[in-house]
Amino acid sequence: MRLSGYFLPLLRENPSEAQIVSHRLMLRAGMIRQSSAGIYSWLPLGLRVLKKVERIVREEQDRAGAQEILMPTIQPAELWRESGRYDDYGKEMLRIRDRHDREMLYGPTNEEQVTEIVRAAVRSYRDLPKLRGREFLMKDAYSFDLDIAGARHSYNKMFVAYLRTFARMGLQAIPMRAETGPIGGDLSHEFIILADTGESGVHVHTDFFEPDWQNFDDVGWEASALQQVVGRYTGIYAATDDVHDPQAAAQYGDSIVSRRGIEVGQIFYFGDKYSRPMGALVAGPDGEAVALEMGSYGIGVSRLVGALIEANHDDAGIIWPESVAPFRVGLINLRSGDARCRSAADDLYAKLLYAGVEVLYDDRDESPGAKFATMDLIGVPDQLVIGPRGIAAGAVELKARRSGERAEVPFDTALDRLTAL
Amino acid sequence: MRLSGYFLPLLRENPSEAQIVSHRLMLRAGMIRQSSAGIYSWLPLGLRVLKKVERIVREEQDRAGAQEILMPTIQPAELWRESGRYDDYGKEMLRIRDRHDREMLYGPTNEEQVTEIVRAAVRSYRDLPKLRGREFLMKDAYSFDLDIAGARHSYNKMFVAYLRTFARMGLQAIPMRAETGPIGGDLSHEFIILADTGESGVHVHTDFFEPDWQNFDDVGWEASALQQVVGRYTGIYAATDDVHDPQAAAQYGDSIVSRRGIEVGQIFYFGDKYSRPMGALVAGPDGEAVALEMGSYGIGVSRLVGALIEANHDDAGIIWPESVAPFRVGLINLRSGDARCRSAADDLYAKLLYAGVEVLYDDRDESPGAKFATMDLIGVPDQLVIGPRGIAAGAVELKARRSGERAEVPFDTALDRLTAL
Repeated sequence: MRLSGYFLPLLRENPSEAQIVSHRLMLRAGMIRQSSAGIYSWLPLGLRVLKKVERIVREEQDRAGAQEILMPTIQPAELWRESGRYDDYGKEMLRIRDRHDREMLYGPTNEEQVTEIVRAAVRSYRDLPKLRGREFLMKDAYSFDLDIAGARHSYNKMFVAYLRTFARMGLQAIPMRAETGPIGGDLSHEFIILADTGESGVHVHTDFFEPDWQNFDDVGWEASALQQVVGRYTGIYAATDDVHDPQAAAQYGDSIVSRRGIEVGQIFYFGDKYSRPMGALVAGPDGEAVALEMGSYGIGVSRLVGALIEANHDDAGIIWPESVAPFRVGLINLRSGDARCRSAADDLYAKLLYAGVEVLYDDRDESPGAKFATMDLIGVPDQLVIGPRGIAAGAVELKARRSGERAEVPFDTALDRLTAL
Repeated sequence: MRLSGYFLPLLRENPSEAQIVSHRLMLRAGMIRQSSAGIYSWLPLGLRVLKKVERIVREEQDRAGAQEILMPTIQPAELWRESGRYDDYGKEMLRIRDRHDREMLYGPTNEEQVTEIVRAAVRSYRDLPKLRGREFLMKDAYSFDLDIAGARHSYNKMFVAYLRTFARMGLQAIPMRAETGPIGGDLSHEFIILADTGESGVHVHTDFFEPDWQNFDDVGWEASALQQVVGRYTGIYAATDDVHDPQAAAQYGDSIVSRRGIEVGQIFYFGDKYSRPMGALVAGPDGEAVALEMGSYGIGVSRLVGALIEANHDDAGIIWPESVAPFRVGLINLRSGDARCRSAADDLYAKLLYAGVEVLYDDRDESPGAKFATMDLIGVPDQLVIGPRGIAAGAVELKARRSGERAEVPFDTALDRLTAL
């Protein structure tokens, strides 16, 4: 993409309405624009990141065997009365009437809708599916099992799928025992990443800081292997302020540290809370009617983009992990007015595109300072700088956004290195 | 995908609430399920089709140079007052108040939002972008140009991009001059496909039935080439009942035929209808402030799925065009209880998957009749049938859903033919 033709409205000043770092950086880097309080449009750069995050979430859900469905945001109030949840949400829930004066609501979650789909379609224990609801900005998954052991296995699958998902984005998401709130049930974990600007106080055992804890690829999906991973991660003390137990933590002494954290996902097991009142029953192997054992599993995909920035930024701007960067390489031509520089930059741009590298090429007529500041602000992982001095020597400068390391390298070396990424 | 583990709730009976063929088939084939009147969940099979349609739309928008953004469905009423459109929509528009009692609305289109984004970000004619809004079920695009000639070029680009998009789905979408309604402006075309069950009466010159009219790949994006295509397609008589002019049509005599049609897209040029009242001005080359010339371009992605079915079905069910089929190949094992059949089917399934073919494998313990009926109902283009008689001869049956042609071929031939698709 040539920057000269790209819709990237950067802000020079910090927007006054934004207090949180990630919010400020998303506005400044032209990723989003406010439409009304709390509601935003995603602009091209932000949407690129959102889609990469979404893709990782989707791939890991697919691997866990979930099947994707799409449920409407506008739901009938009737369904929520069946489950008894209609009055559990207060002003938080948007209640509306359609043009035929029917009561509807803007659904915050989808337990009722998915239970309705399953009760209509599933008759026997042989038909039990696992479903994943999808809305662009929120991924919900729901599991339906015949008994508690099956539901626990589904819960563990999603537990490990979540660890994998966050690890692929370079996030250490620590699972913490959580309150269930209006979703209900008696077993729930939040996945929390540590960040100074996080909204919750958390208390975490330093064992979670061990560098090798992120290797989940060889776990597989077998019940006992999953239970072992879940047992290990839930066996280490970690709690949010809400559920922190100082007495229990005391036994670990100085190994418990207090930090701030951001929630990036939450999973729930709630048994037959929805299936029983809503009549989602199936014939079990003995022929008797069984109320399905359910769980639900949520990742806020758009929220995750903010959390990624909170965990990855410095004073100059965002530092994207490679797996979710909007562009992999930033190409800067220091002198767009110089024929030799332009031709060398155009040539490198074409070669990078041809090799399938996602490259943002700053071909604008701006000062070198402005170009460096732009690439740093929007956080492109690898930057390639072309200037008259380098050209004379047949070299370009490679700069790594995260480490700040710079190296003068010959043209072909730069190309080889970047196309091998 | 093995059908035994796939969430595909087929209906044996025609659902009484569905009058239209496509609606009935989508419910029967387990593509969608009604949540409330007019609101549906997309189940796994339907979502696969929806995504393929969406991908074709996206690719053709990308080719036309559009940049993708995502705008919220809930919009502030204030913006709609600025453009003067707040009162143009009656009960059709859902009006709501948020928890701070601010007036919001569930936006039917996005002209105001995108104009607000552009007026805030674009200062000079040099910055003019072309933007594409995206919501999963509706693709809107908006163009912003400095003058009428530029706006006309943008309109023509989208005109041809739409012809390309529909052609890739095997649809002959006929552009027809249209009323603009509350979107406004004085130039608009609807793209309409012919189907007996269509909601509009249309009057079309038989020149549109020429077989070679679908070749748009070599048109390119140059202004005069585009204008030539647009001129050719708007020069042939085609009109919906609303704007049909029997006198003008009379000169073509018997060449005008009356049919039914379904609208699958509409494009608008409306000048400064939004930019002037909302103050989306830029400095032109002479420095004077210019109100932007705008156009908007919409494809209802979910509606298109229904239109595809209306145009492609028979008494047995759906007949998917290959580019949007949920699965490319249906593999039927006639005797899942027979060890040799099962092993041959498992083997073919593995080989097709390995070759990257999207295959749905009916490995259920059902009668041959039920299996044939399922594949025909859900419309998989190529079917591969394995049975004991064929196995003895080292052969399988290949059946084409559209033509109904069947051929007995050796194993390897079948595999070669299907992996070459």
